[in-house]
Amino acid sequence: MEISPLQKERLQYQPKLPGMLRGGIANISVQEGEETQSVADQEKIKSLFPLTYGKREITFVKGQNTAPAKKQVVGVILSGGQAPGGHNVICGLYDALKAANKDNVLLGFKGGPSGLTDDKFVELDDAFINAYRNTGGFDIIGSGRTKIETPEQFAAAEATAKRHGLTAVVIIGGDDSNTNAAVLAEYFAAHKSGVQVIGCPKTIDGDLKNDDIECSFGFDTATKTYSELIGNIERDANSAKKYWHFIKVMGRSASHVALECALETQPNICLIGEEVAAKKMSLSQIADQIADSVVARSKTEGNFGVVIVPEGIVEFVPEFGTLISEINELLAGEKTAEFNALPTWEDKKAYIKKGLTEASWNVFDILPENIQQQLFLERDPHGNVQVSLIESEKLFSQMVAKKLEERRAKGEYNGKFSAQHHFFGYEGRCAFPSNFDADYCYSLGYNACMLIQYGYTGYLSKISNLSKPADQWVAGGMPITKMMNMERRNGEDKPVIRKALVDLDGKPFQYFAAHRAKWAVETDYLYPGAIQYYGPSDVCDLTTRTLALEKGE
Amino acid sequence: MEISPLQKERLQYQPKLPGMLRGGIANISVQEGEETQSVADQEKIKSLFPLTYGKREITFVKGQNTAPAKKQVVGVILSGGQAPGGHNVICGLYDALKAANKDNVLLGFKGGPSGLTDDKFVELDDAFINAYRNTGGFDIIGSGRTKIETPEQFAAAEATAKRHGLTAVVIIGGDDSNTNAAVLAEYFAAHKSGVQVIGCPKTIDGDLKNDDIECSFGFDTATKTYSELIGNIERDANSAKKYWHFIKVMGRSASHVALECALETQPNICLIGEEVAAKKMSLSQIADQIADSVVARSKTEGNFGVVIVPEGIVEFVPEFGTLISEINELLAGEKTAEFNALPTWEDKKAYIKKGLTEASWNVFDILPENIQQQLFLERDPHGNVQVSLIESEKLFSQMVAKKLEERRAKGEYNGKFSAQHHFFGYEGRCAFPSNFDADYCYSLGYNACMLIQYGYTGYLSKISNLSKPADQWVAGGMPITKMMNMERRNGEDKPVIRKALVDLDGKPFQYFAAHRAKWAVETDYLYPGAIQYYGPSDVCDLTTRTLALEKGE
Repeated sequence: MEISPLQKERLQYQPKLPGMLRGGIANISVQEGEETQSVADQEKIKSLFPLTYGKREITFVKGQNTAPAKKQVVGVILSGGQAPGGHNVICGLYDALKAANKDNVLLGFKGGPSGLTDDKFVELDDAFINAYRNTGGFDIIGSGRTKIETPEQFAAAEATAKRHGLTAVVIIGGDDSNTNAAVLAEYFAAHKSGVQVIGCPKTIDGDLKNDDIECSFGFDTATKTYSELIGNIERDANSAKKYWHFIKVMGRSASHVALECALETQPNICLIGEEVAAKKMSLSQIADQIADSVVARSKTEGNFGVVIVPEGIVEFVPEFGTLISEINELLAGEKTAEFNALPTWEDKKAYIKKGLTEASWNVFDILPENIQQQLFLERDPHGNVQVSLIESEKLFSQMVAKKLEERRAKGEYNGKFSAQHHFFGYEGRCAFPSNFDADYCYSLGYNACMLIQYGYTGYLSKISNLSKPADQWVAGGMPITKMMNMERRNGEDKPVIRKALVDLDGKPFQYFAAHRAKWAVETDYLYPGAIQYYGPSDVCDLTTRTLALEKGE
Repeated sequence: MEISPLQKERLQYQPKLPGMLRGGIANISVQEGEETQSVADQEKIKSLFPLTYGKREITFVKGQNTAPAKKQVVGVILSGGQAPGGHNVICGLYDALKAANKDNVLLGFKGGPSGLTDDKFVELDDAFINAYRNTGGFDIIGSGRTKIETPEQFAAAEATAKRHGLTAVVIIGGDDSNTNAAVLAEYFAAHKSGVQVIGCPKTIDGDLKNDDIECSFGFDTATKTYSELIGNIERDANSAKKYWHFIKVMGRSASHVALECALETQPNICLIGEEVAAKKMSLSQIADQIADSVVARSKTEGNFGVVIVPEGIVEFVPEFGTLISEINELLAGEKTAEFNALPTWEDKKAYIKKGLTEASWNVFDILPENIQQQLFLERDPHGNVQVSLIESEKLFSQMVAKKLEERRAKGEYNGKFSAQHHFFGYEGRCAFPSNFDADYCYSLGYNACMLIQYGYTGYLSKISNLSKPADQWVAGGMPITKMMNMERRNGEDKPVIRKALVDLDGKPFQYFAAHRAKWAVETDYLYPGAIQYYGPSDVCDLTTRTLALEKGE
């Protein structure tokens, strides 16, 4: 198979391990720490995870390996959306397993968790693994979004485990997938099936993060890729001086990606969903905030600028959420047909006006017509508005254009406003992992093997001190139940890993908040450029600004 | 001003010059070659350029510099759309000027050619230049699209030149801008104003290319940036196996960018405008070609794939061109108001059906409704359809979806088809120039200074043998008139540089044509990854596949 020059060279890269994992498997000893408690709802979580709850946090140190000798047959699963570095988790796991005992076996279950229930697998060997080292993508074994939830699925997973004599399963996934890993660990423990389960924290969204997990893998590479593009667009804007670029970036439930990109590129405006929610901002207020920047810049810098919009932004706007609920209600059941039968858009609008509260009508009324139509015409099989399809970058640019015309009429604005739109998501999820993600992921996988060897289950592979060079990283493990609380999901209380939203009191947001007034008016763009895998260390080994700021660096 | 780590390091990069320019200004001698002829319409071009026509091609060699000693006051202009490396042309020019005589002066005229006519300039010095070395963008002095065409503009340019005592002007631009450079050179010669004019070949589109100019600068970096993203998306598609990605890339009048990206990434489908025109393909045929790939892959590889669409594709489809002309005719003058007054889209459609020929109606009729509406609702100030606004990537995905449903009904297709859309243009025009573009551009600027010193005017700075390492590059100059012919522009015969379209008999297209049947069915994706500025030479110094294939490598 033909491969690119970069891929060829990257296959040779040797990822860096934390110092304490560098002495060879025989020289890795374990240190147990405190017993743990879940972050909330301790009694409830404990009752749901009687066998895996409350275990001790653990750290690896240099010293004689005291793990029992045992042949391992491990299954590995990629779960959910792609994130750069997934292949390296598998490579690190494979290398550690083979270094521990060349007869150890690693099976890759294909297409996500359903690979385990349906027993679709491939046995990974040197030739297979070597073709995927330090590459992006999840194509090594594919991924999927199935959850193992029903009694039949659990039984099927157990049957597969038995068939192969599995000693452990490693699940590489986000918060939901690792919640599922904890549930599976408890199930296997309860059934005495002798199968351990270890999770690894993956997601480009950056929302699997807590006191123990400093960051999820993939966030570094994905945000660097988006920041490369945003920086290039900023430089284009600053050269041509004729467009405002509205750039939407992935991240529906949290705005970490947008915030990191803003710290990397210093755009004129970056919306943060968590702030919008906390301040109960309206769409109109957001549009005004952008329009203020456009007006100010038109007088000094010119008619150009860059706005970063997180994918999920409208879901954070309280009045918009209310509007969506009312629309879903308005068209529930048979009312959809009644609505669809109305001959013209004007008729439909009258119907809508009658059906909405005055407050929601006022929100609806200020939306551009194409967005209004989108809300009513494109609905999911349950008849609900598909909020994810709303082109929020266009929504805001159109609202800003309207605001500017109002200001022009009042003599407050005399510029030109022309917008371009972009959406970056798929562009970064499968990039070659940065050195940071390549090292971090390899370490997560290698470390997962150590957790397996020492007999832990229901643990998340944990590498910390990540803002320092890799030799100072700390390897260990943390019970997944420690990160859990009870949350309402689809009308039921469920134990889940608490999702990390952008902390408005945290240093990354505070840094942004302290600088954005200046960025909104001046042209303070930063141009990060493409991810570098070679060259000076400050260019190719630095991780995110988010992590550096969180660590006070 | 805060700058990124990569920018900081790139400021230190020393671009490579062609071997014969490496010995210092005092050791660069000139060799005159043959007298030249324009590529067509020789008599006509000669009559329009009596003083600058027919000059000799020239090459620089190592040897004693015999140029007359003269203080140079040079103006430089960036013209047209951004391309990576523009800053380096200016840096090379500056370094050569200062190396020749520290009293030489370089003025940057701001915002494009209008900077010269309006006398808006900045004197470039070490501190200024050093902040822009090896960076992307045209923000050093800005760019613009004004042409110097009217007697008033020529007089204003001459007055500015006189005011500053300019000895030469360097125009960095595409085919139109260099045509303009030739006209200005002739004007200054006719007016004995003592100002030489030198052009430098810029455009990411790759369509300023001929027997003398192997490639325009910026094409390498821009296509590498787009290919990075396309490769990442391919890997995502191949991991998730659930989407067909339709990716539009910049390039309206030629499909070089799409072709180069296809050679770099081996997508399932890449449309080439020149082939569509040559084969007089219909929209329906194009959609069928894509649908064939979707159907074949659904049976073996899965329901995913990648299609590259050049921005200008619909303009190459003969039947579509006819349709556009008829629509423009249909709505000319007062008929727009008549049309707009029709109350519903159905009424409008009836009006359209009556006004179009049957053939054009049939083309119109197969278009998705949103595209149909776009053709009628979004028109330029002259009432013409804005072809550039047509979202061709969506047009084709929607047409393919329809074709697939027809095939499903016939039992020929049983897959799922879900599409994602992307457009890459602004993302690549201002990237940090690749080592190739950094070296090439610096050499073009350095070489332009040598052409000035030796007294040439109406020449394009020419660096050739570009597929070899820089020390083997050949520096020289070519009269711009040699590249010209007469073409019809806005109802007038004009002398212009002949635009290079994709040569369907050329090696790059032939390579693509020889492999695409396999790529359409299999998953042969290549993942080029991000541009590397450091590291192994095969990763960071290779130029385009297009150039390598053209040179038989």
